[in-house]
Amino acid sequence: MCRFLLYKSNSPILLADLLTRPAHSIIMQSTNCKLRMDMGQSNGDGFGIGWFDEPRTKGCIFTSTLPAWSNINLQRLAEKIKSGLVFAHVRATTGGTATSETNCHPWQYGNLMWMHNGNIGGFEAIKRRLQNSLREEIYLWIQGTTDSEHAFALFLNMLDDPLHRTEFSHRELRQAMLRTIEQINVWLDEAGIADTSLMNFAVTDGQSVVCTRYITSSEREGASLFYSSGSEFRSEEESGQYRMVKANKREDVVVVASEPLTYERSDWMVIPTNTLLVITPRLNVRLYPILDQYWNPHRGRQKHLQACC
Amino acid sequence: MCRFLLYKSNSPILLADLLTRPAHSIIMQSTNCKLRMDMGQSNGDGFGIGWFDEPRTKGCIFTSTLPAWSNINLQRLAEKIKSGLVFAHVRATTGGTATSETNCHPWQYGNLMWMHNGNIGGFEAIKRRLQNSLREEIYLWIQGTTDSEHAFALFLNMLDDPLHRTEFSHRELRQAMLRTIEQINVWLDEAGIADTSLMNFAVTDGQSVVCTRYITSSEREGASLFYSSGSEFRSEEESGQYRMVKANKREDVVVVASEPLTYERSDWMVIPTNTLLVITPRLNVRLYPILDQYWNPHRGRQKHLQACC
Amino acid sequence: MCRFLLYKSNSPILLADLLTRPAHSIIMQSTNCKLRMDMGQSNGDGFGIGWFDEPRTKGCIFTSTLPAWSNINLQRLAEKIKSGLVFAHVRATTGGTATSETNCHPWQYGNLMWMHNGNIGGFEAIKRRLQNSLREEIYLWIQGTTDSEHAFALFLNMLDDPLHRTEFSHRELRQAMLRTIEQINVWLDEAGIADTSLMNFAVTDGQSVVCTRYITSSEREGASLFYSSGSEFRSEEESGQYRMVKANKREDVVVVASEPLTYERSDWMVIPTNTLLVITPRLNVRLYPILDQYWNPHRGRQKHLQACC
Amino acid sequence: MCRFLLYKSNSPILLADLLTRPAHSIIMQSTNCKLRMDMGQSNGDGFGIGWFDEPRTKGCIFTSTLPAWSNINLQRLAEKIKSGLVFAHVRATTGGTATSETNCHPWQYGNLMWMHNGNIGGFEAIKRRLQNSLREEIYLWIQGTTDSEHAFALFLNMLDDPLHRTEFSHRELRQAMLRTIEQINVWLDEAGIADTSLMNFAVTDGQSVVCTRYITSSEREGASLFYSSGSEFRSEEESGQYRMVKANKREDVVVVASEPLTYERSDWMVIPTNTLLVITPRLNVRLYPILDQYWNPHRGRQKHLQACC
Repeated sequence: MCRFLLYKSNSPILLADLLTRPAHSIIMQSTNCKLRMDMGQSNGDGFGIGWFDEPRTKGCIFTSTLPAWSNINLQRLAEKIKSGLVFAHVRATTGGTATSETNCHPWQYGNLMWMHNGNIGGFEAIKRRLQNSLREEIYLWIQGTTDSEHAFALFLNMLDDPLHRTEFSHRELRQAMLRTIEQINVWLDEAGIADTSLMNFAVTDGQSVVCTRYITSSEREGASLFYSSGSEFRSEEESGQYRMVKANKREDVVVVASEPLTYERSDWMVIPTNTLLVITPRLNVRLYPILDQYWNPHRGRQKHLQACC
Repeated sequence: MCRFLLYKSNSPILLADLLTRPAHSIIMQSTNCKLRMDMGQSNGDGFGIGWFDEPRTKGCIFTSTLPAWSNINLQRLAEKIKSGLVFAHVRATTGGTATSETNCHPWQYGNLMWMHNGNIGGFEAIKRRLQNSLREEIYLWIQGTTDSEHAFALFLNMLDDPLHRTEFSHRELRQAMLRTIEQINVWLDEAGIADTSLMNFAVTDGQSVVCTRYITSSEREGASLFYSSGSEFRSEEESGQYRMVKANKREDVVVVASEPLTYERSDWMVIPTNTLLVITPRLNVRLYPILDQYWNPHRGRQKHLQACC
Repeated sequence: MCRFLLYKSNSPILLADLLTRPAHSIIMQSTNCKLRMDMGQSNGDGFGIGWFDEPRTKGCIFTSTLPAWSNINLQRLAEKIKSGLVFAHVRATTGGTATSETNCHPWQYGNLMWMHNGNIGGFEAIKRRLQNSLREEIYLWIQGTTDSEHAFALFLNMLDDPLHRTEFSHRELRQAMLRTIEQINVWLDEAGIADTSLMNFAVTDGQSVVCTRYITSSEREGASLFYSSGSEFRSEEESGQYRMVKANKREDVVVVASEPLTYERSDWMVIPTNTLLVITPRLNVRLYPILDQYWNPHRGRQKHLQACC
Repeated sequence: MCRFLLYKSNSPILLADLLTRPAHSIIMQSTNCKLRMDMGQSNGDGFGIGWFDEPRTKGCIFTSTLPAWSNINLQRLAEKIKSGLVFAHVRATTGGTATSETNCHPWQYGNLMWMHNGNIGGFEAIKRRLQNSLREEIYLWIQGTTDSEHAFALFLNMLDDPLHRTEFSHRELRQAMLRTIEQINVWLDEAGIADTSLMNFAVTDGQSVVCTRYITSSEREGASLFYSSGSEFRSEEESGQYRMVKANKREDVVVVASEPLTYERSDWMVIPTNTLLVITPRLNVRLYPILDQYWNPHRGRQKHLQACC
């Protein structure tokens, strides 16, 4: 089970406060017995974090095939870097995919940053068609072998000049995301793939964030995804637990994560399966159902059915 | 929780059959949800394997700070290497100890190979005294910072010319092991350390194996340790489960491990807490109680109390 | 400048004697000032070695993105492994290619092992056509981004069932090699690529070896390549220098290398530019000119013109 | 040959402009044939950089055992991080010292940062005495095996409470540096070591910098060390060459390096052998001869005698 976390706020957070110090940090938690048992699986096949220092600046990425919890450089850097827009991803490889830095999330292309939790079932059957659909510069940009990086390439291919533009409307990102999923579905259908795909994607241009909780099934639930908002997200020094502070009406922080990060479950809204979430530059959160062949307003009550990435 | 495994047999085993192919391999099992939940903790902070190709040949070691399950070199080599005497160790770091190859078990000095599951509580309080007790060449040989490597250094210091001798009687190894534990205990006492120490040590010269299940407590159980013997140890291809075959009266294989490796629990004997086990060159297994201040013949019935390494 | 070395002999050599102990080892020599100055460039971007333990057995590969000279596992393993057929490659990345284990030579597919010294000029312009020409299982097998791995894939595509067959005639390997070069040339021409390509390829099925010294130019010399044969290839313990012993008429060893490995220059034959060399299972060496548009029997006298890989 | 570079300025520099983009960067230059030949040796055994973001803030360190030129994280981070006080070090291991992150320069303790170019000849003979002279918390802080880290530990031991203090006068740092060298010399003498030691040390508390060019010989020259100052240090985009701009009388930048970094040799002052250099918080540079038994005002004219680290 891979996991991801994204943080967007008007006030930058020290990466250490978000990622390395909290006992229940999404990328460090493998050292914590309690939570590990809930999870039942390690995330020791590498991790990546991406962050933007200010709006309109190209982001930065730090990835490693070593587990996050033993990466001394990560721990030192996290004590220094502040950011108002953070992507974090931990990875558990699935059969056959090499553990290499080129296969670590997130990826970056121009100003755009992308990560994925889930997997495209039967990806190999559509890999060649996907590659052949890409413009040359995007095709040649691909360095790894994962379905996730290829999905990003397909997404980039939906945009005009993604390498040099520094701004995108969230409407444009949203449309490109939907077209990406739609195109993958068309190819999977044509290839006769029966496997289920989990496509929890997240993308940002440094201003807006678009992410999805999506599954190619009208009955099962997608890989879990939650969000929370408030005026401050911080971790308690004593307990090492996160807390979403709601001091006033202002929404200054939005966090999206594969699992609730605080013990206050009421803080966390489930993002319904097959829904697209947008965080606007002004931190408004909007949810859009993805109304395709897998849309089902009566999807079952079995909450949080986990599926492997 | 670190874990170790040692295998000694008259007939060499392909390392892949012991270490990388079985679904329940001690060094790969982090990818297996079921077992992971039993364990409650990852072992992603490196691993090491050591093996001897023939009796009387110096062993070879392969260590890595990357998790075993993503180490492609390990997987390729394990398909090629056969050995009749294998040490394997997976590591979970404890606070403050760097993840570096110099801190990976096993270690080798001359013909001697050593690994440790457990920890010396309050080790820092005795580190300087331990170092100062060592002969110069052993003191300078130390490359890392772990209690485990220092315990090996102390063990080496109990022997005459451990670098150049190729043979040791198991009696001599046993005595050196007991003196090592005894000396550590003296220093811990003098330093007023109240923390409990877990000293499951294993050492071999390529011929005999000596290992201990030991705790500095007369009431608690030591870190778990089991052994099994039979005519063949193999893993079932279909289920990926190990099996100890007992085809005849001959004992051709002895396996010692931190946890039972097969589902046939009756195959596994618990090594009682504060016991030293010897495997002779001819594969006889002998158990010796360690009769010091922590010996307690009536030690409680709370079986398999796990303690963290 | 990448470099490669291949060793084939009736009598296995300890890898340490070939690769790690000699002062002038092709993969370790970066630590040696003298030779480094001749070379003018480091080979610190990873290395790989491949070997077969016996005829007809699948080979084994050990690769690393760490420089060979600081790889402790390599040094330990080399003291244990003997082989009669060894490939060794050191790598200096060229612009834009990631240093990752998936980009390290040699590669292996079924029983076939491949390495490359040189580069395909303008490779990106033909990458998509090359990929589209491949059978699905070969296309999906590719893990990295290098021209070298893709050239291997194209070579595999020229053979029937390269994954499962364990034997190939050297005639078949030779034909596939020539067709690989020919096909690459056709695509480069059609893409209008003016850059020169250096294709020193080596391939083996564990029995025969086929390698080339090739350049897409009728005037310039290819990247250097030499061979030597004799009754024993060994390194002098004192000087750390290699020596090819010619004790009798029997040819028991053939070595092919990017540069002469001994100071006895008369031991080394230059493989002429645009020539294919075959080492048969019985250790006969045969040279075949590659008679295509770049063949030039009067190619200039400027010996050993180095070109960057 | 190890090398180091330190940069101190009133105006922060983007690390990329100092370290990764210039063709002649001290930590990247192994890819450059020309300069490599001058040097005759690779620096592929790891590197480290340290920087302070503002005065009075604890520094940050990034180290790696991979060569700098293939470290993608370094290259990304360097495009983001600005600093007015940078330490950079590239390392070539000398026999017997493990390549591990714990052995990479620089080291940090509290606010103090340290690096070393050179080696303490016969260090092993004084290692135990050095360790035994240390206060417990400094002794236990040591993670590696290098003479360089131990020299730092000895330096720390000369200071009161180096862990918690955030400010030191440059006078205090200077005294501690001299006492460190003096103490090492006493021990080397007592151990009867005849080997020459090269002690180019650099230390900073984030405000002042103290560094030495020192050799335990009254005749030979120390490992080379130069400095330059001006109003701006930058690299030309086209040529990739550094340039020290001297636009006005103000000294806004001081650079100290193992070798001149620009082709304008007149920009670079040789730091005489056995001299201590101080850069004050206000960027004044002061040189002090080290007046001990190795001081020799008539030291020979053989300039820039290189000695191996």
